[in-house]
Amino acid sequence: MEKLFHCVAYYPELWPEEEIEKDILIMKECGINLVRMGEFAWHFMEPRPDEIDVSFFVRVVDRLYSEGIYTIMCTPTPTPPIWLTHGHPERLVTDIYGNKYIHGARQHVCTNNPFLRERGLKIIEAMAKALQNNPGVIAWQLDNELKALVGECVCEECRKLWHKWLKNKYGTIENLNQAWGTEIWSEYYNSFEEVVQPLSPPVIHNSSLMSNYRRFSRETVNEFAHEQAQIIRRFSSAPITHDVHISFALDTHALFSKLDFTSMNGYTQDDGYNIWLFSYDLYRAMKQDGQFFVTETSPSYAGNLTLTTRPHREGFLEIEALGAYASGAFGFSYWLFRQQRAGMEQTHGSLISAWGQPELGLEQVKRVEKMRELIQPYFLRTRHKRPQVAMTYSEQARLFFFTEPLLEGEGYFETMLRLHENLEALGLHRDLIGQDASLEGYKLLLTPFLPYLSESYMRKAEQFVRNGGIWIVGPMSGYRTEEHTVHTDCCLSNLETLAGVKVKYFYPMSNTGASGRFKHLTAPLILHGCALETNGADVMGAVEGGRTPGCAFITEKKLGKGKIVLMGAMPDIKIEEGRMLWQSIIEHYADEARVTDRFTAQSGTTLIYRTGEYEIITAINGNGEGGRYLLPSDGYEIFSHSKVSAGKRELAPFGYEVVILDSPLSI
Amino acid sequence: MEKLFHCVAYYPELWPEEEIEKDILIMKECGINLVRMGEFAWHFMEPRPDEIDVSFFVRVVDRLYSEGIYTIMCTPTPTPPIWLTHGHPERLVTDIYGNKYIHGARQHVCTNNPFLRERGLKIIEAMAKALQNNPGVIAWQLDNELKALVGECVCEECRKLWHKWLKNKYGTIENLNQAWGTEIWSEYYNSFEEVVQPLSPPVIHNSSLMSNYRRFSRETVNEFAHEQAQIIRRFSSAPITHDVHISFALDTHALFSKLDFTSMNGYTQDDGYNIWLFSYDLYRAMKQDGQFFVTETSPSYAGNLTLTTRPHREGFLEIEALGAYASGAFGFSYWLFRQQRAGMEQTHGSLISAWGQPELGLEQVKRVEKMRELIQPYFLRTRHKRPQVAMTYSEQARLFFFTEPLLEGEGYFETMLRLHENLEALGLHRDLIGQDASLEGYKLLLTPFLPYLSESYMRKAEQFVRNGGIWIVGPMSGYRTEEHTVHTDCCLSNLETLAGVKVKYFYPMSNTGASGRFKHLTAPLILHGCALETNGADVMGAVEGGRTPGCAFITEKKLGKGKIVLMGAMPDIKIEEGRMLWQSIIEHYADEARVTDRFTAQSGTTLIYRTGEYEIITAINGNGEGGRYLLPSDGYEIFSHSKVSAGKRELAPFGYEVVILDSPLSI
Amino acid sequence: MEKLFHCVAYYPELWPEEEIEKDILIMKECGINLVRMGEFAWHFMEPRPDEIDVSFFVRVVDRLYSEGIYTIMCTPTPTPPIWLTHGHPERLVTDIYGNKYIHGARQHVCTNNPFLRERGLKIIEAMAKALQNNPGVIAWQLDNELKALVGECVCEECRKLWHKWLKNKYGTIENLNQAWGTEIWSEYYNSFEEVVQPLSPPVIHNSSLMSNYRRFSRETVNEFAHEQAQIIRRFSSAPITHDVHISFALDTHALFSKLDFTSMNGYTQDDGYNIWLFSYDLYRAMKQDGQFFVTETSPSYAGNLTLTTRPHREGFLEIEALGAYASGAFGFSYWLFRQQRAGMEQTHGSLISAWGQPELGLEQVKRVEKMRELIQPYFLRTRHKRPQVAMTYSEQARLFFFTEPLLEGEGYFETMLRLHENLEALGLHRDLIGQDASLEGYKLLLTPFLPYLSESYMRKAEQFVRNGGIWIVGPMSGYRTEEHTVHTDCCLSNLETLAGVKVKYFYPMSNTGASGRFKHLTAPLILHGCALETNGADVMGAVEGGRTPGCAFITEKKLGKGKIVLMGAMPDIKIEEGRMLWQSIIEHYADEARVTDRFTAQSGTTLIYRTGEYEIITAINGNGEGGRYLLPSDGYEIFSHSKVSAGKRELAPFGYEVVILDSPLSI
Repeated sequence: MEKLFHCVAYYPELWPEEEIEKDILIMKECGINLVRMGEFAWHFMEPRPDEIDVSFFVRVVDRLYSEGIYTIMCTPTPTPPIWLTHGHPERLVTDIYGNKYIHGARQHVCTNNPFLRERGLKIIEAMAKALQNNPGVIAWQLDNELKALVGECVCEECRKLWHKWLKNKYGTIENLNQAWGTEIWSEYYNSFEEVVQPLSPPVIHNSSLMSNYRRFSRETVNEFAHEQAQIIRRFSSAPITHDVHISFALDTHALFSKLDFTSMNGYTQDDGYNIWLFSYDLYRAMKQDGQFFVTETSPSYAGNLTLTTRPHREGFLEIEALGAYASGAFGFSYWLFRQQRAGMEQTHGSLISAWGQPELGLEQVKRVEKMRELIQPYFLRTRHKRPQVAMTYSEQARLFFFTEPLLEGEGYFETMLRLHENLEALGLHRDLIGQDASLEGYKLLLTPFLPYLSESYMRKAEQFVRNGGIWIVGPMSGYRTEEHTVHTDCCLSNLETLAGVKVKYFYPMSNTGASGRFKHLTAPLILHGCALETNGADVMGAVEGGRTPGCAFITEKKLGKGKIVLMGAMPDIKIEEGRMLWQSIIEHYADEARVTDRFTAQSGTTLIYRTGEYEIITAINGNGEGGRYLLPSDGYEIFSHSKVSAGKRELAPFGYEVVILDSPLSI
Repeated sequence: MEKLFHCVAYYPELWPEEEIEKDILIMKECGINLVRMGEFAWHFMEPRPDEIDVSFFVRVVDRLYSEGIYTIMCTPTPTPPIWLTHGHPERLVTDIYGNKYIHGARQHVCTNNPFLRERGLKIIEAMAKALQNNPGVIAWQLDNELKALVGECVCEECRKLWHKWLKNKYGTIENLNQAWGTEIWSEYYNSFEEVVQPLSPPVIHNSSLMSNYRRFSRETVNEFAHEQAQIIRRFSSAPITHDVHISFALDTHALFSKLDFTSMNGYTQDDGYNIWLFSYDLYRAMKQDGQFFVTETSPSYAGNLTLTTRPHREGFLEIEALGAYASGAFGFSYWLFRQQRAGMEQTHGSLISAWGQPELGLEQVKRVEKMRELIQPYFLRTRHKRPQVAMTYSEQARLFFFTEPLLEGEGYFETMLRLHENLEALGLHRDLIGQDASLEGYKLLLTPFLPYLSESYMRKAEQFVRNGGIWIVGPMSGYRTEEHTVHTDCCLSNLETLAGVKVKYFYPMSNTGASGRFKHLTAPLILHGCALETNGADVMGAVEGGRTPGCAFITEKKLGKGKIVLMGAMPDIKIEEGRMLWQSIIEHYADEARVTDRFTAQSGTTLIYRTGEYEIITAINGNGEGGRYLLPSDGYEIFSHSKVSAGKRELAPFGYEVVILDSPLSI
Repeated sequence: MEKLFHCVAYYPELWPEEEIEKDILIMKECGINLVRMGEFAWHFMEPRPDEIDVSFFVRVVDRLYSEGIYTIMCTPTPTPPIWLTHGHPERLVTDIYGNKYIHGARQHVCTNNPFLRERGLKIIEAMAKALQNNPGVIAWQLDNELKALVGECVCEECRKLWHKWLKNKYGTIENLNQAWGTEIWSEYYNSFEEVVQPLSPPVIHNSSLMSNYRRFSRETVNEFAHEQAQIIRRFSSAPITHDVHISFALDTHALFSKLDFTSMNGYTQDDGYNIWLFSYDLYRAMKQDGQFFVTETSPSYAGNLTLTTRPHREGFLEIEALGAYASGAFGFSYWLFRQQRAGMEQTHGSLISAWGQPELGLEQVKRVEKMRELIQPYFLRTRHKRPQVAMTYSEQARLFFFTEPLLEGEGYFETMLRLHENLEALGLHRDLIGQDASLEGYKLLLTPFLPYLSESYMRKAEQFVRNGGIWIVGPMSGYRTEEHTVHTDCCLSNLETLAGVKVKYFYPMSNTGASGRFKHLTAPLILHGCALETNGADVMGAVEGGRTPGCAFITEKKLGKGKIVLMGAMPDIKIEEGRMLWQSIIEHYADEARVTDRFTAQSGTTLIYRTGEYEIITAINGNGEGGRYLLPSDGYEIFSHSKVSAGKRELAPFGYEVVILDSPLSI
């Protein structure tokens, strides 16, 4: 890559064309070298069917490029013009409550609608053709924030495709009935055409039906995206991405597997330290090159007609950006350049106001640029150093917890976030990896909260263990089948054999008085947990009190050169005792696995390692309270242009340092 | 009866047929002598219209019977196969918000739908024929948990029947208009066909319309049940029941009046001491023989895809069962035998897991069985001793409080539960009786929160008083007409004459500063209350402070050999002062009525009396904290096989004793 | 006017005609000299189409008049008979969620429906004809509580009218697209017919669309009312009104501009001191004569099937009424005379019960009458004294805050209420004036929370300043265009020039650490605020801390003989510091503006001035806790019939005095 990108979302189609010249001046003043355009401009490019004219955007791309500013060009499918829906309610997204989304919204046309697909590909083809050899277009973005609003659509078109999808998956209706156990409540279907969509309300739908409908929805929306990519690739070799947020109803791993790079929307507030760190660890690990892009975040505050967030404290924007660049981002982008004058997002922070004057965030953006310039030469010669610890974060797991929310009021993300936070607190560098990711190079693998362990995952993890890795599996992993039913051989099926245990009981442990003990520490056990008996494994921690005292809650078993550790139940890490217990277990196994890339820092301060021509440590105070860390080696700090010595160092609130180490770490 | 039944819900249709043999072994191991089957198996028996085959269940019944296990056979109407609804949305239940229930749910077809009725009777006829002389079938259950989900359906079929029902009730539309006062807001109807269903939203519907629609719904669903019973009776002489829960939108008294025994679903958690006691007092009193059946309760914890309850503490299951048996239950049944592997209730506790191993509840079930074996000979020779105190619990009253929820955020059940709890705290044995129940044998009758006092109820109560009973009527009884309008002669109509009072004001007393005084006690008055003047009666308690100081709030009047006591307003029994005041009033009149069957026990511990060949006292610690009670006479305690002396005794947490008294109590 | 009216809502059509004689006796006993009738009696007068007979009401009017009781006759359009809607769902109001209101409700037929309009005018014409020269009819009320339930209807008829309204407003669709900025999200419309109604759900609708739909709704419902008035005026010269509540979705200023007097429904509870004071200040100021009417308030407590309020404490009703009469009310009316026996408002307090006996409120009503008799001669010879301070309360502003609720969880009314409360606490007499009101006679004008400042408002305010007035504009005024978009010249457009400032930033200030300083006081700034730079103005208060320290938050600029004061941001007046800061600013400018009509009273006690033949001070303790005030001059107190001296005086809880001053105040 030639540079670290500093980017902003740009809507020139909303303003008089002559404003562009003024805009370019401001962009250059704050180091913007990339813009993202076009995602909502379908009407602008095709006001009436087939009256397609994309010349405006070609002009803008060219003009920007002539000033050294690249473009990420977006396909405009999230906002179909009125002619796609006027008089055609059947094309609208229908949610499970029967609500139809209408014009004026985004993504109100079902992405499974054939007319949308046809017309979408047409406008995209026109754009791709017009921009095919344009050096200004450095990348493409497909649509915008797919499935941000409505998880599952249940329109008529989806109904038909659902039946087709089921037929394709199960072959015969009898297979489906068997897999889903539809004799229950006489749910049995005689044909695929009869299978209902999970409309509200029945009582609760069959878990297999619900999880499969969610899969169907995720697969078909990915198909929509991949179709778009295919068209673009016929004309353009620029890499293709899509911008996601962790909360969307997508299978992001599958989505990005066929795209060229991952992009994420941040929008964390200034107290969201753990959230941005989590996101960077997740989206970076989706691609082997350890790179990703931050597509959207607010330069100051977020807002729309119904709410506004608090403006960031000074300094936050720099650490949000530096954290991204250090973690592997090759670009960092704001939403948006100029405040909207109309619509529904007038109160969202921007670089300049609707009347062309600096907005609150602009000064911060300039500070980001200063930082970016300084880090650029060093970061371009290094990449994020691959961690030795990985934790599986699975969209399939998230989907299971939507269907069967056993996390006592929290979602999968929140639960995983808390685990991630505790890994970070232990000073462990970590990747959040998809369930299909390679385990190559890791020493310690955590697999919590993965209700269904696929055969391929099991095989991969077993191999990882045999090769010397330590695999901590559980809590709440492996207790459901692929079809979201209960195993009938034993609670955790093959995992029990592999881990050398027998699950005696699997039950809701919260508030039953059950505690887990590991070494000298104890803490209450919560959520659904396994009371274990061993069958080849060794007991490493026992359940005390409650309904199943004397059972194990952690076991370990040697396998090849490594170990498989079954964590049967979850200590309550919302309280201090639970955190200590959980961290003590992880630390114990990190030691055993000889995980060497660890750092020491006060809570709220983190260290990120890059490697390549140099070893670089980026230290960031993320919680805005300042904090100390331990520099492991002498080096050169680039912002102070000074030599620094190994040992304790102190960061101001939202303070940061980038140290080029004198000698590579002995790790 | 030949035995006390120990029962479990069984779904052999969901598992390979060969599993039955293993199941029988486990059942026998824990003393199961009865199973309940078939309620969701309509598809299994009739996969396509008229392809009826019930031979599987006949085989299972026979096999179980050959092992000494009886069957309650259920009609499968709660879960119609897909062929009843696919392509027929008009058959689906429609709630007042316009939501249609769909396949995958239970009771999603309207019970007023003629096609459901026709097809339901057909499958039932086939079952009844096939099992008509089968000695294994000891009883029938109709459908399952009618009206558990949707109170009132407003489908098109219901609309037609509603108009017919109204015509039948009122004869002419003018009668309806007069009764409902429809000149108000120009609601007036010119024909029955115009009368709306209480769809949401208008503002609020006319109270007469709402209460009558609720009656219509309750009457027609009972008609559905009674039609089923009629068909079964053509072939089988086994008794017929239905399983209800206190929360369903049913008139249970009317339902069971034409069935053979009452069955209730419990599902109380281990802190639900007052709830199970309340239920047992209610369902027992529905039949003259003082018997009932507990159809469903969880052996350990309840759960479905969206929530799970905390597992019972050890010992709770025994006292829940012993309380039932002692209170008149001839059977006690769990839901369910084997954990569901699919569907939506996978997380519900069971006897064995989906993989055939003991579940958390199994050990507790075995302890219940041990207890059951010991009590059986004694309980079979006695019956629950009829109490001298009765409190009217009326589904009609409950219906009025749905229409006009004047209980400040609580429902009728919760309000009555609190009163019942205070009766129990006074050591008073009590029945909860329907409004049509005989008053024969009672000495003290309480009639609180019965907005409409029918003429027949008034006549019966008056007779009860003339014969020497004491009738405490109110608070909040008699202030509405049958049509849910206000009386226009005086506030409480005939009750004022009978009780010798004049209601000066009837108004919301909460937070107005009004207190009630009885003897030396005072407490705040809440809810809508009557400020009374006497007109033949004596003032027994006065209102102090607030807006109507100096009025009476309790009066009494002699009538024949008894007394009618009007409790004009409700002391706040959520606070200690209110409880003391209320209990002091009831105790005063229990003394006057010479109520002799009272016990002394610490709060949370109760005594239940049985009588027959012996007098038996069952003492139970229900709150799990242990407690003392006073044994009124020497006797023989069956669990310790030892003689015990009259006087103070102590129970452990969830402890219990069953004492055969040496001599009958002098009561 | 000949008298102060004492009025009650009367429904003789709901009771046997012979009851009228009894009713008249009771009315006379408590001084009722006016009734309001007919608003729900459409069916009674026209049971079937064209079978119109209004003779009953003519008889009642005549009979009442013969007893000295006048009538306000209401048009019955809120409750169309069943024949308007049976079989005609298309006539029903449809809310944005798709819910249709149905028969049994009120206002369930869309007021834009042509059939309703036609039939409504017909029945009104019949009434107006029949009562045209009737001396008993002293006024007319149109419909009842328009838009009390559903803000905006989105039925098909509304859709058509919406398109017509848009065409009329914008001429060409291109104008609309420009004005609304519909290029955003490709919302662009090619024809008026395509413009959507703001159905739920899209994400959020375009702000211009939402605010305009609200205007459309308000204008067309006013058209409905004004059409009714026109018909009545063809036959009757009696003045016409409508009864509103502050919460309805109406433009009351526009509504009353074409009616003859304003009427308001109160229903404040006894702790609603500031609310009734606010309402009286608002509805009085709508008409130049400083008069208004209180149409509805409860004599004791409010209630319907779903809730009941606490009965008023003793004495409250008198001060609610006295406050009204003193503030300019020429009549004070209760809802309702006799408790409803049927329907949905049986639990609402009344003068007499359904059985004809005194209700809780009756005694209070008699006390009101006693008071009214004493004040009548004095009040008829005076009028409310025009205040020197005015604050603009705009239904257009309220509408903007519905579309874009930037008030952090509060509504426009609640926010303005708090400001009004603080004006009152400063002892400032004040009018709440519409945005089209004349500023003649005021010295100090406050214009807070008016997002759009129209040109005519700006011109008027500028003239006011040039003539010597002080205009405090802001916070949150002028930051949106008429079309609910953002200005593109500068933040506040022309206001910046006029006020001599430049808005540097306009952003959400809450919780950013920003404080405002004025003189020696500081307090946190909240909501969206302007950080100001001056451009001709003087800084009067600075922003301290937060993101924009050093900017101004209050500036002033001389203009002609007066001053324009820009309050850029809002101190948090929910806390004491904020109240002190805000009050100190207002007091400073009230002094500068030489506002002389101020009073001194303890918080919770207020003084109201009347002027005319005498100067009268009405002192009222409104919070029910009693309080002191300073009588500015010697005088005669009418209730004690005694001379009183200037100086401190004390009022009991809900106490009051009316003092005829010996000499006019020197103000």
